[in-house]
Amino acid sequence: MNPSPDDRFEVRAIGWVESPLTDRGDAPRQGDEGAPDAVLRLDPAVREGIRDLAVGERVIVLTWLDRADRDVLVVHPRGDRSRAPHGVFSTRSPDRPNPIGLHTVQIVEIDDVRIKVRHLEALDGTPVLDVKPLLGPVGER
Amino acid sequence: MNPSPDDRFEVRAIGWVESPLTDRGDAPRQGDEGAPDAVLRLDPAVREGIRDLAVGERVIVLTWLDRADRDVLVVHPRGDRSRAPHGVFSTRSPDRPNPIGLHTVQIVEIDDVRIKVRHLEALDGTPVLDVKPLLGPVGER
Repeated sequence: MNPSPDDRFEVRAIGWVESPLTDRGDAPRQGDEGAPDAVLRLDPAVREGIRDLAVGERVIVLTWLDRADRDVLVVHPRGDRSRAPHGVFSTRSPDRPNPIGLHTVQIVEIDDVRIKVRHLEALDGTPVLDVKPLLGPVGER
Repeated sequence: MNPSPDDRFEVRAIGWVESPLTDRGDAPRQGDEGAPDAVLRLDPAVREGIRDLAVGERVIVLTWLDRADRDVLVVHPRGDRSRAPHGVFSTRSPDRPNPIGLHTVQIVEIDDVRIKVRHLEALDGTPVLDVKPLLGPVGER
């Protein structure tokens, strides 16, 4: 199989992040480094898809890091210029060919299509692409 | 912030999966349920981005599940019709609005832009979108 015109695909926001974080420079590098709580305001069109999510559950949220530079292949880890540059696929830099953010968060409140989560480092207005459960042991899936 | 025309984004394959798995019905549900080894054949254009990946490392691979049904919001978990239907965001079903696959695999061989990984349940020809490191403890990032 060779690269072809079929190598581009469209993702669609299923919701948006509401967060006090508005500036990339102020955002923590990862959720467990002091990120605030945030709300995933989902599109009512996907309401049926979230009906089994529950408060207390830990989930994986995928976002579209819309302020990223997609032409970058090498970065200084964590933006620290004293550290040797690394290939982006060995880092969690938002700057990468497909700037998809991966966040593990706990759900702390659900109000219709508004899902409040703990410690999310995504900026206000960031599009949400997907929510997935964490996988338990093989026998409990 | 409201939904707007800015709610659609383009992802581009950075590579493709080479796997003996060709049929969705035969594929294991998850990598740790008997999936075979597979090769990520990356586009030489992203070579610089993988330069710090190493054999033995465990990484997260994001794929585009191009054979998925994007209009599905409720599924029987694991395709088992004896189980009550669940909202897709509480399942790992490939059928979901943005069919992005999330796979944690170990790198077993690297030959230029061909990265062989252990236990990947993605089908042959599946586009690869991203590779990310697993995060270690906060102080070691």
